[in-house]
Amino acid sequence: MTKPALTALAQSLPASVPFVGPEAQERQMGRPFTARLGANESAFGPSPKAITAMQKAASEAWMYGDPESHDLRRALAKHHGVAPENIMVGEGIDTLLGLLVRLYVAPGNAVVTSAGAYPTFNYHVAGFGGALHTVPYTGDFEDPDALIAKATEVSAKLVYIANPDNPMGSWHSADVIQNMINRLPAGCMLVLDEAYVDLAPEGTAPAINPDAPNIVRMRTFSKAHGLAGARVGYTIGSAEVIDGFNKVRNHFGMCRISQAGALAALQDTTWLAHVGREVANARDRISDIAKANGLTPLPSATNFVTIDCGKDGDFARAVLTALVAGGIFVRMPFVPPQDRCIRVSCGTSAQISDFEAELPRAMTQAHEKLG
Amino acid sequence: MTKPALTALAQSLPASVPFVGPEAQERQMGRPFTARLGANESAFGPSPKAITAMQKAASEAWMYGDPESHDLRRALAKHHGVAPENIMVGEGIDTLLGLLVRLYVAPGNAVVTSAGAYPTFNYHVAGFGGALHTVPYTGDFEDPDALIAKATEVSAKLVYIANPDNPMGSWHSADVIQNMINRLPAGCMLVLDEAYVDLAPEGTAPAINPDAPNIVRMRTFSKAHGLAGARVGYTIGSAEVIDGFNKVRNHFGMCRISQAGALAALQDTTWLAHVGREVANARDRISDIAKANGLTPLPSATNFVTIDCGKDGDFARAVLTALVAGGIFVRMPFVPPQDRCIRVSCGTSAQISDFEAELPRAMTQAHEKLG
Repeated sequence: MTKPALTALAQSLPASVPFVGPEAQERQMGRPFTARLGANESAFGPSPKAITAMQKAASEAWMYGDPESHDLRRALAKHHGVAPENIMVGEGIDTLLGLLVRLYVAPGNAVVTSAGAYPTFNYHVAGFGGALHTVPYTGDFEDPDALIAKATEVSAKLVYIANPDNPMGSWHSADVIQNMINRLPAGCMLVLDEAYVDLAPEGTAPAINPDAPNIVRMRTFSKAHGLAGARVGYTIGSAEVIDGFNKVRNHFGMCRISQAGALAALQDTTWLAHVGREVANARDRISDIAKANGLTPLPSATNFVTIDCGKDGDFARAVLTALVAGGIFVRMPFVPPQDRCIRVSCGTSAQISDFEAELPRAMTQAHEKLG
Repeated sequence: MTKPALTALAQSLPASVPFVGPEAQERQMGRPFTARLGANESAFGPSPKAITAMQKAASEAWMYGDPESHDLRRALAKHHGVAPENIMVGEGIDTLLGLLVRLYVAPGNAVVTSAGAYPTFNYHVAGFGGALHTVPYTGDFEDPDALIAKATEVSAKLVYIANPDNPMGSWHSADVIQNMINRLPAGCMLVLDEAYVDLAPEGTAPAINPDAPNIVRMRTFSKAHGLAGARVGYTIGSAEVIDGFNKVRNHFGMCRISQAGALAALQDTTWLAHVGREVANARDRISDIAKANGLTPLPSATNFVTIDCGKDGDFARAVLTALVAGGIFVRMPFVPPQDRCIRVSCGTSAQISDFEAELPRAMTQAHEKLG
């Protein structure tokens, strides 16, 4: 029996995992992490109302979810002042990014992002045969001018920017992003990843123009809303762009329980405000701990703090390795010079205390290892 | 601002929904269905233990699910007597079918299925530019000989069969399918959709050979396990084929709540047996109701009964339309001559009584409409 051959494109792809999950690390270590601060999850949890809604929906899980996510889409449309036709709900931003790349990027088409930005976007670009072009960060910020210049130079189909940025936590004001939109080259779509924007200062998100044909915004319930495990993201765009997702999406792909949870979470603005305060406090505390250890916390508009360890990538990796060995799950940027940093999510007070207790030991170990 | 162009392939695709959801029909009618018997969901619900597990996991939904679905995969491997490396968990069979087509079907590659078989598979084949070839059913059965002959003729990359079959409910014995496997042409993969096999008689599923390089089996928690809304499917195949999914899947795509629910459901064999008995009873009762109305129920190894309305597709569609207008959600096959039938899922006793009450009126209306 001759085995079937993968497509040439599939053959060219590595069988990779963009991120190793903390559970896999725990299995490898043989014990659980004491603090889960590596995936920018919201340790403050989802809204109690969302939990109640999901618990109620659990007994209704024998029914497929509404393939149109009608109620959630309507609520999101109202929330953002657009029409339901401007919203597509999907199984997290990761899925929506994959569908978007599939719709617009044919093999060989150019795509632009920043070196060290969200790797799952790059994974999808590679997965559909796109040609990825990168520009460096400038001073720990994604560089709108460089992105636009590169997109123009290579006639990119898509150009990606996250605002606020992950993994650096930096952000641009709305007018900087709007200016970027205004200068997009012909035939190029801006993929504006606003996963963290619910936690950013007022004035970070440019106004939503549902008629703009060349910008899609990615939003999620995984961060401020604390529903990472439920897989609910959405994209906002022109009705024509949004309808395009119906060509390729899994129409019945949304978990019914997750739809219910997201709808309840969206309506609980009190909880969202509470999380915002908790995140702000945690950011301050993580920053203070970094400074107390002689490190430099970067300003952040997200639910994490990126900490400059003051040396090179090898040193930051040594700090990270020691933290992980000490039961503190953290991650770090992949690319120099950003990889001089570690990235610490805003956990609960107890989790941050665990981090506080482990960091001095991790620093000592890193110094001992690298001199 | 010139808008970005879809890829040529994406431009060729319709923005379609393979199935309209019952919720959309309810919104259109302005009232809910009294009986939801159209999507082969399990009205008997998931295992109470699965509900409890999901309710517990709801408060942990701030954490991403394990991207390796380690615990579930291990339990499934044990259940099937294979290694975890032979199992890939995904967001329902629909997602796994899409990934499989993406991995093996380049634009123009041939794929074979039966005319009138699962349309979502066809949707994925079209979505990746495959050339779909169909063979007719033979006597309401998918025809293994015809499928193999066509796959050989067109040098198909994939050949699809569902056993038991949806939408007809018919099934082949394990030896017929094994014989099909043995005769697969070189370079062709059998996609064996066993979504309903948990409800079929012993001897329906051929033995699992984890080393066979040219067969992937699709299984799901959506049918007998009553977790359609949770989106958990899995595929069983050779370690090499299974690892291929890691090239293209959304590694963090699995809902954490759903993983917990599926694991608990798998372990509750008592509930599965209970559902099996309920389904068998419901099948008998639906069949009796069909006969009492002068119609012919087809034998079924699934959680639905396909009922031959005795005339052509227009007549069956008229019966279906009248049932839907009467608050009974049912569906029907798409393609002649199977479209002389309607398809009724095994609901609760109360739902079947609703169907029983409406069917005579629907028959009368269909006769009045079509003479």
